Amino acid sequence: MIDTARFIERNIPNFEVLNEEALQIIEENAETVLEEIGVNFVNNPAALERWRAAGATIEGERVRIPRGLARKLASTAPSQFTQHARNPERNVEIGGKNLVLAPVYGPPFVRDIDGGRRYATIADFRKFVKLGQQSKWLHHSGGTVCEPTDVAVNKRHLDMMLAHMTLSDKPFMGSVTEPSRAADSVEMCEILFGKQFVSENTVMTSLININSPLTFDDTMMGALEVYAAANQACIISPFIVGGAMAPVSIAGTLTQVLAEVLAGVAYSQLIRPGAPVIFGAFVTSIDMNSGAPTFGTPEASHITYGAGQLARRLGLPFRSAGSFCGSKLPDAQAAYETANSLNMGLLAGVNFMLHSCGWLEGGLVASFEKFVMDADQLGALHGLAKGVAMDENAQAMDALREVGPGGHYLGCAHTQANFKSAFWRSEVLDYKPFETWSEEGGRDTATLAQARMEKLLSSYVEPAMDPAVREALHDYVAEKKASMPDSFT
Amino acid sequence: MIDTARFIERNIPNFEVLNEEALQIIEENAETVLEEIGVNFVNNPAALERWRAAGATIEGERVRIPRGLARKLASTAPSQFTQHARNPERNVEIGGKNLVLAPVYGPPFVRDIDGGRRYATIADFRKFVKLGQQSKWLHHSGGTVCEPTDVAVNKRHLDMMLAHMTLSDKPFMGSVTEPSRAADSVEMCEILFGKQFVSENTVMTSLININSPLTFDDTMMGALEVYAAANQACIISPFIVGGAMAPVSIAGTLTQVLAEVLAGVAYSQLIRPGAPVIFGAFVTSIDMNSGAPTFGTPEASHITYGAGQLARRLGLPFRSAGSFCGSKLPDAQAAYETANSLNMGLLAGVNFMLHSCGWLEGGLVASFEKFVMDADQLGALHGLAKGVAMDENAQAMDALREVGPGGHYLGCAHTQANFKSAFWRSEVLDYKPFETWSEEGGRDTATLAQARMEKLLSSYVEPAMDPAVREALHDYVAEKKASMPDSFT
Repeated sequence: MIDTARFIERNIPNFEVLNEEALQIIEENAETVLEEIGVNFVNNPAALERWRAAGATIEGERVRIPRGLARKLASTAPSQFTQHARNPERNVEIGGKNLVLAPVYGPPFVRDIDGGRRYATIADFRKFVKLGQQSKWLHHSGGTVCEPTDVAVNKRHLDMMLAHMTLSDKPFMGSVTEPSRAADSVEMCEILFGKQFVSENTVMTSLININSPLTFDDTMMGALEVYAAANQACIISPFIVGGAMAPVSIAGTLTQVLAEVLAGVAYSQLIRPGAPVIFGAFVTSIDMNSGAPTFGTPEASHITYGAGQLARRLGLPFRSAGSFCGSKLPDAQAAYETANSLNMGLLAGVNFMLHSCGWLEGGLVASFEKFVMDADQLGALHGLAKGVAMDENAQAMDALREVGPGGHYLGCAHTQANFKSAFWRSEVLDYKPFETWSEEGGRDTATLAQARMEKLLSSYVEPAMDPAVREALHDYVAEKKASMPDSFT
Repeated sequence: MIDTARFIERNIPNFEVLNEEALQIIEENAETVLEEIGVNFVNNPAALERWRAAGATIEGERVRIPRGLARKLASTAPSQFTQHARNPERNVEIGGKNLVLAPVYGPPFVRDIDGGRRYATIADFRKFVKLGQQSKWLHHSGGTVCEPTDVAVNKRHLDMMLAHMTLSDKPFMGSVTEPSRAADSVEMCEILFGKQFVSENTVMTSLININSPLTFDDTMMGALEVYAAANQACIISPFIVGGAMAPVSIAGTLTQVLAEVLAGVAYSQLIRPGAPVIFGAFVTSIDMNSGAPTFGTPEASHITYGAGQLARRLGLPFRSAGSFCGSKLPDAQAAYETANSLNMGLLAGVNFMLHSCGWLEGGLVASFEKFVMDADQLGALHGLAKGVAMDENAQAMDALREVGPGGHYLGCAHTQANFKSAFWRSEVLDYKPFETWSEEGGRDTATLAQARMEKLLSSYVEPAMDPAVREALHDYVAEKKASMPDSFT
């Protein structure tokens, strides 16, 4: 079994681009949006009734929220919570100075060097879960790491949950594509963790997207209602391609993001005060020539930095950033864009980073090689987050005295005592001399990652599980599947 | 002619990893290094004499500097200076909130897709200077963009200076490989700018490496002496592979960097008080398995963040970071490592970024495609540095009101008025739909960069120059070359 790093506890400051005045302007403007423009809760009379009772004005499906009300309602959400894993050593703390890393979510396609680009299957899904389990720097097994398109739409969630629960012992996400599937996810957790445990603890963090601008649909809200009522965590996340689903400016986008999150978080607290939620912000820019979303751009970075500040002022955990890229291949473009986004995410104070590895082609593709490449780079984030040690050993004055002008440090006592832990080292990238590298075939990064992936998969061992629990989970899935005809819509 | 962006003026904060206590510890320790251990000035009796006269203790070639003396001497160096270009629109301000970007420096090899890896020639050199001239986000033509190995060692500097002076109108660097070559560089500038102008203005910024640890050799110091006396700028730069030329810890390395820079800057001010200098820090980590230098690592980032803080406390411009990578190819590894380093450099408050594009294989190779790829990414740094606009237009409340829940922003008035300048757009990377990209050959980033490079070179136009000046420069080079036999050592 590969040892997994504990979630990151940052020992470095956050990077903050907005000053106090800018933050106040955005907060004021967000309240104006909620009060004057309002948000739509679509096809959800119960939600409108909850809002009315809380003091909002309802007109059709439009909910207008008096200044300050959403913020007041949101204040009952916890600033930090524990998500439990079936292996307690894998529990994660979400919020505060912590950063939890989870893999790519949602792609209908997969790509690898040998098979090219193709529709994802449940076999691909399981392979990703195994890779996630084997990835030292990944703390979380994620959710829909790819869409298993060979399984009926109405049954996919069962196979996906089963894979996360049995092939990994890291924490995971629940289904959100139907309220009933969210309920199934809770039931499967009750089998895995015990009913009592689930009633008292958070064992899932699930992704609730807002239909930006300012729209909360009944599917996502239905899932949120199930999870919040069960005290399970939700990421409440605007989904924004800037210029299309939000204004084509950083300040305008931040205003909309804050308004949407305030409304969504407030609603979660109307379902159950104290339910754990995360301030989400999925934000990309757009190429105005083609309309394509663009990734790793400076504007997306600023929105993320700013959203982090707004989340901290609300006292909520923050989700953003990831291994975002628009490239079709795990090439230099993919890596520039991904590195820009990963670094920005760390410095923005992100607490939960979905999509932290494996994302390709604007999220249409989950790449096996890029999963491994990105997961390796996550090790560098761990190194950055450690900050700078300043104890006597770190000051190294003895080494400076021992070596002196013109000497070298390779053999000195301080180096010998410290070199093993001093520098982060990639387990994918090439550090060999040119001649050796050439003799070994002159492999590029994707090819090195392919070899690494094969090594990780060949050493994979299924984490131990009570056979009775495993059987009960399999039985649950089999019964559920048998209870309904396949649907592919 | 391609328009070149003005040097970057940052409108964002610096990222600072060290607190006041840590900074004071490092500053105290650096003074202890200078006082107790000292530095060596090798084969340079005049330097020893200057130090003795200034109050240092000399023992053999060892110079021990009393606490506070180096800092006091360094205080006459300017915190910001103008480097003039022959085209005044290309002048750069070095220091303060500014960031000036210059290309890769020093590789003996070049690589491109068509020709592979090979020794660099003067033809390659000229091609890089043209690419630099054509690069919108590059403010500086640099120095030894590659080593023209087909020209005699003792004559290379003449051809290199001539190329920068005639093929580009951006500012450039002088030769440092011999004091006499530094003097030739000054003389050529006197032809280009006029003798009077050069005596009154800084027209070169040159790279003076320190032989870390704590050693100042006579070649580099000889060049420094020439430049400082002529009021030309020098980057005084420790050259450190951590664990080999400095202690294997961040704090220890920062202590040595500060001690070395203090001694070097103080020495420059002994030559001529007020001579412009830059606090340099070339720092990489090491792979302790192979001894290879490693790039884009978290430890190098922290050293750069810390060195930036130390430079600002000294009131000196800061040079660090670049398109650093260890990869043999312009692939994902190259891009991860480079993006890590470029982002870190911007946030560390770097004022002069040498190697900002084109670096490959640990600096052994200048890559044509990577030059173009990196130079494109420098545009993203410009976008980040702009910070966040908060004026009424940026707040976009009218757009939010116009669009409302469920709408989209693509056609709204605010988007139409702002989309052209709202988002940075790459001129290399692929934003096309998968199908279009496939039909066009499924090109990776390096292949796209090759096409971009060819386009830039085919549209290159030599910047206008007084024919008499051009002739005088050519005559100078021809006469100098004729005055000495070729030497290849």
